[in-house]
Amino acid sequence: MRKILIIGAGKSSSYLIKYLKDKSVSENLEITIGDINVDNASKLLGEKTKNTHIIHLDVFNSDSRQQAIKNADIVISMLPARMHIEVAKDCITYSKHMVTASYVSKEMQQLDEEAKANGLIFMNEIGVDPGVDHMSAMQVIDRIRDNGGKMLLFESFTGGLIAPESDTNLWHYKFTWNPRNVVVAGQGGAAKFLQENQFKYIPYHRLFRRTEFLDIEGYGRFEAYANRDSLKYQHAYGLDNIKTLYRGTMRRVGFSKAWHVFVQLGMTDDSYTIDDSENMSYRDFVNSFLPYSPTDSVELKFRHALKIDQDDIVWDKFLELDLFSSIKMVGLKKATPAQILQKILMDSWTLDEDDKDMIVMYHKFGYAINGEKRQIDSTMVVLGEDQTYTAMAKTVGLPVAMATLDILNKKIVTPGVQIPISKEIYTPLLEELKHYGVKFIEKKVPYFGYNPLNLE
Amino acid sequence: MRKILIIGAGKSSSYLIKYLKDKSVSENLEITIGDINVDNASKLLGEKTKNTHIIHLDVFNSDSRQQAIKNADIVISMLPARMHIEVAKDCITYSKHMVTASYVSKEMQQLDEEAKANGLIFMNEIGVDPGVDHMSAMQVIDRIRDNGGKMLLFESFTGGLIAPESDTNLWHYKFTWNPRNVVVAGQGGAAKFLQENQFKYIPYHRLFRRTEFLDIEGYGRFEAYANRDSLKYQHAYGLDNIKTLYRGTMRRVGFSKAWHVFVQLGMTDDSYTIDDSENMSYRDFVNSFLPYSPTDSVELKFRHALKIDQDDIVWDKFLELDLFSSIKMVGLKKATPAQILQKILMDSWTLDEDDKDMIVMYHKFGYAINGEKRQIDSTMVVLGEDQTYTAMAKTVGLPVAMATLDILNKKIVTPGVQIPISKEIYTPLLEELKHYGVKFIEKKVPYFGYNPLNLE
Repeated sequence: MRKILIIGAGKSSSYLIKYLKDKSVSENLEITIGDINVDNASKLLGEKTKNTHIIHLDVFNSDSRQQAIKNADIVISMLPARMHIEVAKDCITYSKHMVTASYVSKEMQQLDEEAKANGLIFMNEIGVDPGVDHMSAMQVIDRIRDNGGKMLLFESFTGGLIAPESDTNLWHYKFTWNPRNVVVAGQGGAAKFLQENQFKYIPYHRLFRRTEFLDIEGYGRFEAYANRDSLKYQHAYGLDNIKTLYRGTMRRVGFSKAWHVFVQLGMTDDSYTIDDSENMSYRDFVNSFLPYSPTDSVELKFRHALKIDQDDIVWDKFLELDLFSSIKMVGLKKATPAQILQKILMDSWTLDEDDKDMIVMYHKFGYAINGEKRQIDSTMVVLGEDQTYTAMAKTVGLPVAMATLDILNKKIVTPGVQIPISKEIYTPLLEELKHYGVKFIEKKVPYFGYNPLNLE
Repeated sequence: MRKILIIGAGKSSSYLIKYLKDKSVSENLEITIGDINVDNASKLLGEKTKNTHIIHLDVFNSDSRQQAIKNADIVISMLPARMHIEVAKDCITYSKHMVTASYVSKEMQQLDEEAKANGLIFMNEIGVDPGVDHMSAMQVIDRIRDNGGKMLLFESFTGGLIAPESDTNLWHYKFTWNPRNVVVAGQGGAAKFLQENQFKYIPYHRLFRRTEFLDIEGYGRFEAYANRDSLKYQHAYGLDNIKTLYRGTMRRVGFSKAWHVFVQLGMTDDSYTIDDSENMSYRDFVNSFLPYSPTDSVELKFRHALKIDQDDIVWDKFLELDLFSSIKMVGLKKATPAQILQKILMDSWTLDEDDKDMIVMYHKFGYAINGEKRQIDSTMVVLGEDQTYTAMAKTVGLPVAMATLDILNKKIVTPGVQIPISKEIYTPLLEELKHYGVKFIEKKVPYFGYNPLNLE
């Protein structure tokens, strides 16, 4: 029996647990799920089998954590990212492989040498974004290079959205994931990317006004705004000399223009608290970002400050949120603007019981081959089944589960702290993901880039 | 002989030194000026007298610093604000009074008890802003209250500007003080103030679009944008129940609208460095904040992004700065956008040899008395004489010098870490300042506030 310890049975663990449970007999797996909330874990696991166990695990209790890790052959940490490191250190101590879907932290990276010295695989960033994006991008990039092509352009976009059938509001958006991350998205510094060899910078307060459109057959048009650091994986992907490198986040068209209004007013600020936020109405909250007037309405001041014409459809989006309600109360003590905005949005954007989510991904690969410029666009759409088996849980959990099994089955053998950008990892994994409906559709399109006429 | 030690003989010490030197015989003063740059100090002092000494003083050398402080009766620190604390600690050790023009730091405030226990006066914030603003405001506020009035509104504005005769550019602005502070002004969080009992917040990226106008007789119209924290002195001024409290920075009309363009583009950001800034032209710098295009000009992209009409006069302000020059080079290694913008502005906004500066201040006091609402507007304009005897040096240095003498002459006797908001301090000082042309003109105006009709 090969022993797998899964720490953390949250939202994104449903497919992960189901996949491994389904394979537990054929693959000789003994699965232990450790969570501080045993009920949640039980719900996700469903019927118990002789190969599955649930244990109460408080990750801050080092004795029980170490005991559980000691008993395993491989550890999957589905904890919040900041909690991985203690688990990782134990994995070094007790010589266990480890898999996470989170970004490689500096502390995690520092374990690389020790992991290698002990022949341990510490696989990270193997969820959806990061994860599926790495693998699907590198498969095409490697193929282009293997064929003698030279990469000129790489753009990559991901969105966690609502499925078309559940798309019932004017924003075409609901919270399918952590609402807080959506409210503060893009903050913390200027976005940076490369366009035709020129570094470009967008300050946060302009981020949602510099979008680009993306069309996916059968799903219509999307828009994307730039991620903070598009150049993060430039070196890892082997794109040091690429001319255009851009990574972004996808939304339905019109979202960003309306969101920009919140940014302009200062409603997404998470750095200070609003006085007496508890006793404010939504209307009071909006008014605190507008000049005082004894007579003018909050609505007119809002329209004037943001230059929203009387017939601009963006207006209806704010009405839909009940943003100007003098009845609905904030009711949060010492709240930041971002926390208050999140509360207002959660009134409207929380999933209904039968709502389904959707993950979309769009890559553009521009390259030169035999003196010719070409482009491949590659797209993926995954729809959720229900609120447990979501597209998010699928695209995060399945790659984690598959990588775990591939490590146990020695398909993945290279040790060290790593992300899934090598053929050894992505080839079997992307192939298997197809059987679960996680697949990319490639299209050859004319090379466009940003300078199609090659003007200097 | 009473011994005064002045540490730091920078730009703002000219009037300070002249004032004390002029009084040195009549007031029995022995003045020692300690600076790391003896030449600068000599220039400011002019002809030496038997009552004046210049010493080389490295404030980081604690032996020589302590020796100098030990020899004095009172110490004036004109050092950069962060360097005061070591001097202050020595003043506690050797039981010396101390005067600075800087904001009271947390560390300085912590010396309050020790200063009081030793009967020492640690006078701070006694320059222009902070300083003259405190004194002139409190004089009127105390008078209103002494007459039985109740404060409803206090707004206070200060500007360090160029004198009308030297106002030769479209921005009506030159650097009369630290250019860096101008470029990053307003950053670090939302501005907060009170309007008719409502807290109002303005995010940095909107700060320069929420200005108000101020007229000063003989000097025309100014505009003002909000300071970060208008409520900082609410309690100290005894304005806990005031309805409107606003502090701002004055510029000539039109400055803020044009400056807002820099903010929008992200050019005032000081938090990251631009790649290869050294080899950029000014044009390249501007272009790095605009989308790539093989054909469209930087000018048109700029106009489009900022919605600047073809006939908008704001455009000429950017042309005047040579912002689109492909010849002028940044030439700064690893520079932040703010550092690059500062360099570009210094080309155009550095004072000519015969330029003169100007300090303007504008207070509004709204109050109720005998069931009636009234308002007093109080304004001050000080013009510089030349580039040594500037309005800035006058309004910073004279109050420091006068307070020093008042402490020696026991006109100021209350010990502790303090700012000049009590009658004991401001009454003699404002009276004396008048003789040097630093005076306020008061005007009774109809009470306006923000709700003149008292609508609820």
